[in-house]
Amino acid sequence: MGRIGKHSFELASRPKVLASAAFVGEKEGEGPFGSEFDVAIKDDTLGLDSWEQAETRMFESAVRVALFKLGRQSDELSCLIGGDLLNQIVSSGFAAREIRAPFLGLYSACSTITEALMIGGMLTDGGFSELAACAGSSHFSTVERQYRYPLEMGVQPVPTSQRTVTGAGCLIVGNENTFRNSKKTQFTHTVLTGGTMGSVEDFGITDANNMGAAMAPAAFNTILTHFGDTGRVPSYYDRIITGDLGKFGSEMLHELCREKGLDIGPIHEDCGKLIFSEDQNVVCGGSGCGCASSMLASHFVPAVERGEFKRILFLATGALLSPVTSLQGESIPCIAHAVVIEHID
Amino acid sequence: MGRIGKHSFELASRPKVLASAAFVGEKEGEGPFGSEFDVAIKDDTLGLDSWEQAETRMFESAVRVALFKLGRQSDELSCLIGGDLLNQIVSSGFAAREIRAPFLGLYSACSTITEALMIGGMLTDGGFSELAACAGSSHFSTVERQYRYPLEMGVQPVPTSQRTVTGAGCLIVGNENTFRNSKKTQFTHTVLTGGTMGSVEDFGITDANNMGAAMAPAAFNTILTHFGDTGRVPSYYDRIITGDLGKFGSEMLHELCREKGLDIGPIHEDCGKLIFSEDQNVVCGGSGCGCASSMLASHFVPAVERGEFKRILFLATGALLSPVTSLQGESIPCIAHAVVIEHID
Repeated sequence: MGRIGKHSFELASRPKVLASAAFVGEKEGEGPFGSEFDVAIKDDTLGLDSWEQAETRMFESAVRVALFKLGRQSDELSCLIGGDLLNQIVSSGFAAREIRAPFLGLYSACSTITEALMIGGMLTDGGFSELAACAGSSHFSTVERQYRYPLEMGVQPVPTSQRTVTGAGCLIVGNENTFRNSKKTQFTHTVLTGGTMGSVEDFGITDANNMGAAMAPAAFNTILTHFGDTGRVPSYYDRIITGDLGKFGSEMLHELCREKGLDIGPIHEDCGKLIFSEDQNVVCGGSGCGCASSMLASHFVPAVERGEFKRILFLATGALLSPVTSLQGESIPCIAHAVVIEHID
Repeated sequence: MGRIGKHSFELASRPKVLASAAFVGEKEGEGPFGSEFDVAIKDDTLGLDSWEQAETRMFESAVRVALFKLGRQSDELSCLIGGDLLNQIVSSGFAAREIRAPFLGLYSACSTITEALMIGGMLTDGGFSELAACAGSSHFSTVERQYRYPLEMGVQPVPTSQRTVTGAGCLIVGNENTFRNSKKTQFTHTVLTGGTMGSVEDFGITDANNMGAAMAPAAFNTILTHFGDTGRVPSYYDRIITGDLGKFGSEMLHELCREKGLDIGPIHEDCGKLIFSEDQNVVCGGSGCGCASSMLASHFVPAVERGEFKRILFLATGALLSPVTSLQGESIPCIAHAVVIEHID
């Protein structure tokens, strides 16, 4: 049985993370991790007719490049698992049309990449998938016009704003067979060993410009559940990494954890805080499906592969609101899914 | 190993469908299957402030009533797996906030219920879930204003139109333990034995008022893959049931199958064609996540339970477009996921 405690699970067969790839935008390419991404695009339309088409192409390219690193083709995929922030997850759906693999479409806002990895890990462990591509994307310009204002209005950010990352990240998950049958290898020491499924938390925050504060309780709840279910303590991990809580959200998470006697501050990192530098004028950091997925694909998984981190708990948080629910006065329900990624010798 | 052929899978442990429930709207309640649904609501706002809130409440209620039939509470759920048609799947997300179970949010348009059952079946078989609620919903009035026109405009339907079903359906999937540990039982003879994951098909149709024609190729492709992977023939099944192809889409599916020498006509049924009667003035039938999920929950699963059908192949189709992609001139990519549901003695 793979279940541990109430909402956590163990992947006994230790599915392998065999390859990864990330495509990001120009601003992300100029950030502190710019050199680690596979491609930083210069034109955020990629010369196509719309930003939506560009995001679709980035999603598709991340999957294809990750497969290329294994010497694999998309028609060998057992499944493509992923999503994005656009209505009807059209970036992923249209990318899946080109990739032509069985497609499990997800919506979990910015926690999509961890939902994809959980499902990919469980399907691999259960013998249902040999070659799964887990991916997520977001694009600053598609998201701004869908969730906020036309870019042409030039609306000023507020002190709690985060900037949606233009980026797409993909991780390829397989088993021993996949590894043996691949022509090339990128990673050989990185495995998925478990995780914790998140439930929806809502602390009543209604300010859609303060996502970090809305999402921190969801991250906190999943962390608490994870340690409760597994009997582990924070020091079991080299790093606990969140997706895009940003500056305020991260502080709030530390505070919530401290109240329960969990001191995660020294080992906590947040992709949203890392992806841009202070001088890039992004207020509280990055956000979006593309933030966690590109940082995981290009920075954290390679660090686990090198043995720099032996074990990480990676949890991405998502805000499950829509512009309609905000206008109807609803608060912002949030979720966080966590996966455990380990180095093996 | 649970994989069969290229995109199909077998659930060796035969996860049980232990209970189901469906809530539908007034018009659906007046249709030929009206008496089979658990509840047909009279006021499509349920007395709440918006149709969106009503859809959320219907989704939540379908899950709670299905659990009630097992004598179970929502806090016992291993996971809630589902989605709907609204942007950011807010009906499901807001329902998950009330249900407070681990939530795997999906977006697969009208094929959501079969994606949920596939994932629920595989997680149960893999030992990751003991009590999974698989659910999907749609609401005529929330969908019309999001995808088409304000209802107040009174836009005339075209000859290929289908009416979005107001409905929510939930199926509870578990294993032998779940069955033994439940206080009550609804179904004891119904199991999930496998399925086929769909990939995204696009035949270049751009008319968002002719979803049946756009979706038929996806259903065809999944049916062809299913028989190719399993070596079965159509007569293996008592019924092959699609979600919401409607009249034109069903004819197109029969035609596509005939060209490949598969005569599915005599055993094919379509939830969209069934849910409303000819005299209910709905042109080509019903559609929406709620159509397949309520008909499966309240009509087809009970028929399998009674042994009326020994084996059914149930596949729901989804159109993965958005209003934005339609305005940008894109065609309509579609998907169909299939599950096999069998009667055991």
